[in-house]
Amino acid sequence: MLDEEKVFKDPVHGYIYVNDPLIWDLINTKEMQRLRRIRQLGTSYVTYPGGEHSRFSHSLGVYEVIRQIIQSFARNAYEWPSEYNQLVMVAGLLHDIGHAPFSHALEKVIGLRHEMWGERIILEPTTEVHQVLAQIDPELPSQVASVINKTHPQKLVVSLVSGQLDADRLDYLMRDSIFTGVDYGKFDLARIIRVMRPLGGRIVVKRSGLHTVEAYLLARYFMYWQVYFHPVSRSAEVILKAILKRVKDLVAGGQEPPMPHPALAELFTQSLRLDSYFALDDTVLFNAFNVWQDSSDPILKDLCRRFLNRHLFTYMEYPDHDMDTYQKLRVQVQSHGYDPAYYLAVDETGTVYYDYYLGAENSEDKDSALFLWDDDEKILIEMSRLSKPVNAIAREKQVIRRLYFPHDVR
Amino acid sequence: MLDEEKVFKDPVHGYIYVNDPLIWDLINTKEMQRLRRIRQLGTSYVTYPGGEHSRFSHSLGVYEVIRQIIQSFARNAYEWPSEYNQLVMVAGLLHDIGHAPFSHALEKVIGLRHEMWGERIILEPTTEVHQVLAQIDPELPSQVASVINKTHPQKLVVSLVSGQLDADRLDYLMRDSIFTGVDYGKFDLARIIRVMRPLGGRIVVKRSGLHTVEAYLLARYFMYWQVYFHPVSRSAEVILKAILKRVKDLVAGGQEPPMPHPALAELFTQSLRLDSYFALDDTVLFNAFNVWQDSSDPILKDLCRRFLNRHLFTYMEYPDHDMDTYQKLRVQVQSHGYDPAYYLAVDETGTVYYDYYLGAENSEDKDSALFLWDDDEKILIEMSRLSKPVNAIAREKQVIRRLYFPHDVR
Amino acid sequence: MLDEEKVFKDPVHGYIYVNDPLIWDLINTKEMQRLRRIRQLGTSYVTYPGGEHSRFSHSLGVYEVIRQIIQSFARNAYEWPSEYNQLVMVAGLLHDIGHAPFSHALEKVIGLRHEMWGERIILEPTTEVHQVLAQIDPELPSQVASVINKTHPQKLVVSLVSGQLDADRLDYLMRDSIFTGVDYGKFDLARIIRVMRPLGGRIVVKRSGLHTVEAYLLARYFMYWQVYFHPVSRSAEVILKAILKRVKDLVAGGQEPPMPHPALAELFTQSLRLDSYFALDDTVLFNAFNVWQDSSDPILKDLCRRFLNRHLFTYMEYPDHDMDTYQKLRVQVQSHGYDPAYYLAVDETGTVYYDYYLGAENSEDKDSALFLWDDDEKILIEMSRLSKPVNAIAREKQVIRRLYFPHDVR
Amino acid sequence: MLDEEKVFKDPVHGYIYVNDPLIWDLINTKEMQRLRRIRQLGTSYVTYPGGEHSRFSHSLGVYEVIRQIIQSFARNAYEWPSEYNQLVMVAGLLHDIGHAPFSHALEKVIGLRHEMWGERIILEPTTEVHQVLAQIDPELPSQVASVINKTHPQKLVVSLVSGQLDADRLDYLMRDSIFTGVDYGKFDLARIIRVMRPLGGRIVVKRSGLHTVEAYLLARYFMYWQVYFHPVSRSAEVILKAILKRVKDLVAGGQEPPMPHPALAELFTQSLRLDSYFALDDTVLFNAFNVWQDSSDPILKDLCRRFLNRHLFTYMEYPDHDMDTYQKLRVQVQSHGYDPAYYLAVDETGTVYYDYYLGAENSEDKDSALFLWDDDEKILIEMSRLSKPVNAIAREKQVIRRLYFPHDVR
Repeated sequence: MLDEEKVFKDPVHGYIYVNDPLIWDLINTKEMQRLRRIRQLGTSYVTYPGGEHSRFSHSLGVYEVIRQIIQSFARNAYEWPSEYNQLVMVAGLLHDIGHAPFSHALEKVIGLRHEMWGERIILEPTTEVHQVLAQIDPELPSQVASVINKTHPQKLVVSLVSGQLDADRLDYLMRDSIFTGVDYGKFDLARIIRVMRPLGGRIVVKRSGLHTVEAYLLARYFMYWQVYFHPVSRSAEVILKAILKRVKDLVAGGQEPPMPHPALAELFTQSLRLDSYFALDDTVLFNAFNVWQDSSDPILKDLCRRFLNRHLFTYMEYPDHDMDTYQKLRVQVQSHGYDPAYYLAVDETGTVYYDYYLGAENSEDKDSALFLWDDDEKILIEMSRLSKPVNAIAREKQVIRRLYFPHDVR
Repeated sequence: MLDEEKVFKDPVHGYIYVNDPLIWDLINTKEMQRLRRIRQLGTSYVTYPGGEHSRFSHSLGVYEVIRQIIQSFARNAYEWPSEYNQLVMVAGLLHDIGHAPFSHALEKVIGLRHEMWGERIILEPTTEVHQVLAQIDPELPSQVASVINKTHPQKLVVSLVSGQLDADRLDYLMRDSIFTGVDYGKFDLARIIRVMRPLGGRIVVKRSGLHTVEAYLLARYFMYWQVYFHPVSRSAEVILKAILKRVKDLVAGGQEPPMPHPALAELFTQSLRLDSYFALDDTVLFNAFNVWQDSSDPILKDLCRRFLNRHLFTYMEYPDHDMDTYQKLRVQVQSHGYDPAYYLAVDETGTVYYDYYLGAENSEDKDSALFLWDDDEKILIEMSRLSKPVNAIAREKQVIRRLYFPHDVR
Repeated sequence: MLDEEKVFKDPVHGYIYVNDPLIWDLINTKEMQRLRRIRQLGTSYVTYPGGEHSRFSHSLGVYEVIRQIIQSFARNAYEWPSEYNQLVMVAGLLHDIGHAPFSHALEKVIGLRHEMWGERIILEPTTEVHQVLAQIDPELPSQVASVINKTHPQKLVVSLVSGQLDADRLDYLMRDSIFTGVDYGKFDLARIIRVMRPLGGRIVVKRSGLHTVEAYLLARYFMYWQVYFHPVSRSAEVILKAILKRVKDLVAGGQEPPMPHPALAELFTQSLRLDSYFALDDTVLFNAFNVWQDSSDPILKDLCRRFLNRHLFTYMEYPDHDMDTYQKLRVQVQSHGYDPAYYLAVDETGTVYYDYYLGAENSEDKDSALFLWDDDEKILIEMSRLSKPVNAIAREKQVIRRLYFPHDVR
Repeated sequence: MLDEEKVFKDPVHGYIYVNDPLIWDLINTKEMQRLRRIRQLGTSYVTYPGGEHSRFSHSLGVYEVIRQIIQSFARNAYEWPSEYNQLVMVAGLLHDIGHAPFSHALEKVIGLRHEMWGERIILEPTTEVHQVLAQIDPELPSQVASVINKTHPQKLVVSLVSGQLDADRLDYLMRDSIFTGVDYGKFDLARIIRVMRPLGGRIVVKRSGLHTVEAYLLARYFMYWQVYFHPVSRSAEVILKAILKRVKDLVAGGQEPPMPHPALAELFTQSLRLDSYFALDDTVLFNAFNVWQDSSDPILKDLCRRFLNRHLFTYMEYPDHDMDTYQKLRVQVQSHGYDPAYYLAVDETGTVYYDYYLGAENSEDKDSALFLWDDDEKILIEMSRLSKPVNAIAREKQVIRRLYFPHDVR
């Protein structure tokens, strides 16, 4: 234990408490500090000026939520394998360690897989994270990695980090809600933690907590509509991807633009080393766009100016994916002198607000469902059977499809 | 008026309302959008992970506070020159337009004066801000500039933007308080706005608002101690200045490190053009530090790593500025192999929480005082005469002086 | 207009602003002041200790919400009959003026109809409310009454006070949520007000406000489950009704207990005069129970002690209303020496979270639906067609049926 | 321990947690339940409509604050006599058990001493509170009483309930602030709890918590000015006292008005039995005023109507207590036909925001000071020496003196 409890002030949890020196040392590694320079919400700041918070504060928040859950389990004397306490707090803290700046765009255009990089950061002996972990126990790095990539045999531990009601979601919904100022994402976190309990190798919820968990699932639904699916933020994402694609194409064509950070050259030639991966953060990308806004390539120049100055694309809803509309718009885009490869995009985004699968009794997939524990009847009941609103948004995938293009094309 | 009222969701004011197309167009200039990439609180994020908000949202907030003040003046039929309404809202929105990234450090080390740059951005015909303003009225740019630099003849208008109780302070105290999670900076903004009134060419406060304004002044006091003077944030600032100084010295010595953005070369040779000034933002500096963390210059390399990875300097209080302590420490720093020019710093910061000057009746300086209007007695009373706690923190300059140096020197 | 704007500090709206002297004078009538002594939430305080707020603060809140709605209509230049502004604010303020203490219980057991009493308070010339109104315009009392009882010809005005999205619900959901501490009832009131607009004689919502209104309807759903249907609060209500019934039966049997307030005697003999009705408030009933806890009638004595000391009944869910269960329990209750007339109760409560009726084009009933206005397509769309969660809770009446009886019977 | 943790939802602390069955049983005694019917803030509701919360929720809050303080002491392994944990939580919960309705008025006019009644409720064997306590340990009642009346030998335990920084103040400042909507009373409770520590038989504060405790003391200062000293609330208190005095005088003169609750007769003849004392609550007094508003005594009738209908007295500041002003006003009051004994009052209220006494080393009185612990220097420093604003409001007694009389006299 630390001599003196450390705390971080946090607008979401009030305070984040650190007593374990391992947690403190991990927070102070350069790989964790790098997350201060990666925004949690990617391009959402263009719509919600307050949404500028980083993955660093989210990571601290996930750790804190896990700490509180474990504390509640102990206070209520629930059956819980407390020998995993440190492991699961560490896994929560590190679960986003591999994230690149604007992860989703980089994954789509360049093929970066942040899960893989996260695993490398934990497992390769050159990183500070690895060294801090291995000093405690040489097995710890691989155990942490296995919790994060969900292969750890103790499913109970995994489900606190990744599940229908995990600390990751609990923190980011609250955090994104508070920083954007969008109230819909708030729910009663203290009560959710109180109604959670481990039971038969699974985290379940006491039946009395039905409406609290309902409110949490509906908060997800609202946050997707108000924030994550927001058409203006998606427009910035569309332009971001167009920039990345343009640079990739220029590099492929032997017309590489100046690379104001060495890691960028490796990124666009798919030859990233682990060290260079660390260097990548939002500021490296923003600075590159800043340099490229004076590029000799007119497309790259224009796209970067659009991104930096918020001259975004407009859009039309495109639910049916009909080729006719697309082709007509394509012709129009071209007739305005724009290359459709960069100036016309189908943006598809979506989620399942609450998914469940009720397979055979021993099926792994059962863990995807949220179960309520009825202590009188001694039975587990799947969430959507008890809640009409949840049933109404369960299972089906919500897909939003839009066509993006410059304003003057309309 | 805009066809449809525009709003920004904001964690401080709930919503920011825009009805005037001029305000809308100004927000959409590239010079305003650039403020999204400059943090309001400089290095405070190292202490308060939530303190990552930008000057952009603060600028919107200042505009909103002025809008609400004007609205209150109108609702209460106070004597107020409403022909200046648009001017003062614009001046509030643009008051920070000239800010550089980490303004204070750049000003100290490089001599950048953000007020001068702000004036150029408003007055020079090449900027989008200038063009939007001049389209309304060719005189508008110079009027806006004169409100911001306090030379506008209508003091009443100036004092809403810069004064003891101006919209700038009202917004940033609340905003910094909410984003850092430090509750001390909160006060009753709605009531402050209600008790403000123009009277005899000055903004005064109704006597019934005494304790509300007291709470605001004490909130300033608390925010300085908890946030603005925080020793760890100051440590990051010290290292930031050391980096800037090292690069400046290297450039002077003909050993210029790579400049990953063209504006940086101009910055360090004091030859910045207006265009390049626009390009400067937090991400350009962070990316440079990121590149320089692998510099061939060992000092630059080490300082950049310290800054990015939060391996900050430690400190000791140094209230008396005695040379003895300093010299001893200097020797120790050197004996650890550090160059004191970069590894030993006296950091001095300070403020006057509430200043006033009661000169001759017609003195300009009287505007520096906060007056309460007693409507029964029909007299103005200077704030500190009515409040013991305010009197206790008034006039005297609070100075914090600390010595910073690497941990291993201690 | 008042010389100086008056305000009330309020935990829900921050401040409640009063500029119109008529509103100010109405607030100061004895009939309005009486609402300070009637709790908004009846017996909910037994479950939520914070839920002790009065109908007085709720009435101010309804007035304030209407004031803000009207202001938004004006700011956006919507077509709105502004000649009704004062009328609708007054109607909002007075809409609960006829409420008795524990209205629902008194209505069920004694047959008091608070709507009728409210009308009398507004229309009869002896009341202060009537006199204040009639001083402005002799027609005003009847106009106010017609808005409250929904017979006023201008449906637009009526719907701000009573409708699917009226100021009454908007205030009480927020207020009950804040005072009980149950977060589920919160929604984005500022945005709801912004997306409301009058259109074709009806208040509709802009389509962009879909999810905001969804959140409001779901907040209703949650507040019913967490607060209004709460089994423990209902238990106190059951006992309250049993007390009232016992006194009524004793009076009918010529065994009237002492009546510590003259109005009580009139109440239980159904001979209430308007003056006596005014006198009735929570404190009169509580004092009576306090006196009757030492009654010579053992049943009345026991029930009053249960109510005051929170020794409530237990309950079992009773969804199917099967006589078998009931009869068995009745026998048990009797075998424990309890008179089932007072010690066994079926408590049935329920609501429709969102009701709509889509009749013929000109049907009055259409006003019961919530319509969204699609400004691109220029069509109105009924809410539940656009929202799956709302559709899931629409139309069907949620009924909660429980059997209440003493703990020792179980 | 309880089988299942119990919680109360609370707007101040989020949740109040109960694990100890003794606490649960005490909450359910009739003496504790009675506190639900006594408002924490007396007549403040006339100014702040939200300020209608009861001593019951405050008592739960004091218990919760103590629970959190003890938990923090344990987590940080501070030296703390944990054998007193239960005792101090019980004492916190019960510290207001003896409060009468409108305590201060009843104390002034009738001479009721709530401390004495509180002691009787705990010590006399007929009360439920006593029986619950004595069942655990026959010594427990007297121990609890000694903590509340500050005679318990373990000063550390006493100071958590009554001291410069006790759980009572910590809860009521926050609670009164939240319910009235007056923001000034808020401070960082979580941090205060974290910087408190037992040291050498005294609760001290870590030096790093200086500004947090400063903010708490200033919150006291603000709450007194904005709420506790509020002239309108004091006016209601003045009338309340006049009513009590009138009834007392009538009773003394053999003209007793009807007593709608038997305990009232005992109250006004100073012959209260413990049982009757229990019966007294706000509702008994309000009902009496309600009955007496139709009294045959014109003074009693008028005063009761003023109180219920909020037709309060006006006031003038009267700082110097000069007899001249008083006498003139007295004549005027009489000339308007009012009896000055009931229609003219000097209201004097006051407090010392922060008091300290630095006597001899072993002096008991030292406990009245707030000490900060400097862990580097290993010394205790009295608060006002480190804080200018606190020094400015320390020691001196703030006295507010006003003359109250009917409006038409002015």
